Amino acid sequence: MTGQASSLSNLESTQGQTDLSGWRQAIEARLYHHLHPSSPAKTKPCQESLDRLWQAMAHGVLGGGKRARGLLVMASAQAVGYPSMSEGCLDIACALECIHAFSLVHDDMPCMDDDALRRGKPTVHVAYDEATALLVGDALQTLAFELVADAKGLDDSIKVQILRVLSGATGARGMAGGQAIDIHRVAQAMQQPELKEMHSLKTGALIRAAAESGALLGLGLQAMQSPLYASIRAFAVDLGLAFQVLDDLLDASASTQLLGKTAGKDAQAEKPTFVKLLGLDQTQDLANRLHRSAFAHIEGLDEKAGALRDLAHALTHRQH
Amino acid sequence: MTGQASSLSNLESTQGQTDLSGWRQAIEARLYHHLHPSSPAKTKPCQESLDRLWQAMAHGVLGGGKRARGLLVMASAQAVGYPSMSEGCLDIACALECIHAFSLVHDDMPCMDDDALRRGKPTVHVAYDEATALLVGDALQTLAFELVADAKGLDDSIKVQILRVLSGATGARGMAGGQAIDIHRVAQAMQQPELKEMHSLKTGALIRAAAESGALLGLGLQAMQSPLYASIRAFAVDLGLAFQVLDDLLDASASTQLLGKTAGKDAQAEKPTFVKLLGLDQTQDLANRLHRSAFAHIEGLDEKAGALRDLAHALTHRQH
Repeated sequence: MTGQASSLSNLESTQGQTDLSGWRQAIEARLYHHLHPSSPAKTKPCQESLDRLWQAMAHGVLGGGKRARGLLVMASAQAVGYPSMSEGCLDIACALECIHAFSLVHDDMPCMDDDALRRGKPTVHVAYDEATALLVGDALQTLAFELVADAKGLDDSIKVQILRVLSGATGARGMAGGQAIDIHRVAQAMQQPELKEMHSLKTGALIRAAAESGALLGLGLQAMQSPLYASIRAFAVDLGLAFQVLDDLLDASASTQLLGKTAGKDAQAEKPTFVKLLGLDQTQDLANRLHRSAFAHIEGLDEKAGALRDLAHALTHRQH
Repeated sequence: MTGQASSLSNLESTQGQTDLSGWRQAIEARLYHHLHPSSPAKTKPCQESLDRLWQAMAHGVLGGGKRARGLLVMASAQAVGYPSMSEGCLDIACALECIHAFSLVHDDMPCMDDDALRRGKPTVHVAYDEATALLVGDALQTLAFELVADAKGLDDSIKVQILRVLSGATGARGMAGGQAIDIHRVAQAMQQPELKEMHSLKTGALIRAAAESGALLGLGLQAMQSPLYASIRAFAVDLGLAFQVLDDLLDASASTQLLGKTAGKDAQAEKPTFVKLLGLDQTQDLANRLHRSAFAHIEGLDEKAGALRDLAHALTHRQH
């Protein structure tokens, strides 16, 4: 890692004015609020089984994580003048986090990455069982779309547009497509264009969706014609790839304890990575270039975009 | 099986006026239309992997199935005066079928029911692999919600209400909750109230959602106050349970070839069933009672409800 990176220990160390730690707590509290059944079961055996499912869902989504996607919804909303701490904005932040958590729960299953540790805790299929992990991932995806439907204070037209953005980023045209490339290409050589395309879908799509959703809250349906929206989107494209490049660097150099997940997994699984393709130094250069490019897209924006800058700084200087 | 049941060989044998076979073909064609990526990949290796994912999704959803949920959307729409063959209605029918197909693909995986045969074909994890089956289920769920967002000709307010109904029926408060009870209660004694509650979530929720979605198309947001909506919903509640009771009967008595999936799985997996709890005769009586009750809810409706009657008749007299 560079000296710059190692001088910052976590997300809270950003030098900006944004209270990212407070925002993260707000996301956590809102997720907790949504992670309960709406009415009791009619019979005791069913109640026990349903309680167990909700507990496993909470295990998969609460108590950890950088909340990068949720924070990006909030920062993006703030940049377009929408209150980042409003219930509606937090609901959409939670929707993004539920999609991300569902993908992690399924990714960790034995038929995928087979990982036992996530966010410093046993993964869902280890803490419970495989069938439960499968259902937890499924139900967390559904919950994300339910949160969009019920998001507080949003017009139906905005909800539908966010639904469009989020489903596009989650399914076969987005994250699931990226994962399909990942599992199909394991142990095969990949050049930089393929690797970038895979990550653009696997990680980038949801990060773009987070930024777009936040911007839609404030800009409404005119967003797509707004230069502000275009800037925030271009920022998110670079940030998404920078985020993944840094993940590769951290996987190659940080410890399991620091990451809260098994380090060195990529090399072990013979996965194509930027570090393997470019080496450590050139990968660090790529991360720096993407970081600078991301910032360039939003440097013309007013002070309301400060949270985007603070978040980007924190995410590209993290150590886990 | 009763003589009445065995006198009808499949859905097409219904005595009613509704062209259920034509409706089913329309659903199939619309599903086929939606099962393609919207734009080509940038690199050839990624294109190959994405093509493989879409093929596996098509394997999971096309070429079979009774299309009970999709047909119910159409019949329910027709009952409230909305054109059942319109693109918007077919899009919602496809959304319901994608949710159902996703649940089957995941249900068949080794960590759940571990089944190799579905709709007369190898299951997705057998035809492809487990990781692909996991992603196919995930992506089909997402596609369902994408179809709601993009459904042709629907007001945003109706889309949001259908999203609410569909996500509520799919997640931990619906189908996933029912599946969680199922996997948690295997090999444990279940009484009739628990068994009914499990099926009300596992199968019933999506069948209710199909009927409600169709009715919402025609009745709009005033639906919830409409006696017509209440009748259709009550019909769907009984139909959903009748459907499951008949599934238990068929599993206990029909052949694997006829079912297109492995027969006798429930007994083998020590799953609680109505047949085990009540015996064959009393289970047949329960199916008949539910059938009559379902019809009673819609007997006062006008001739537009004919398709609901025809569909209920076909579904409760099926042999697979």
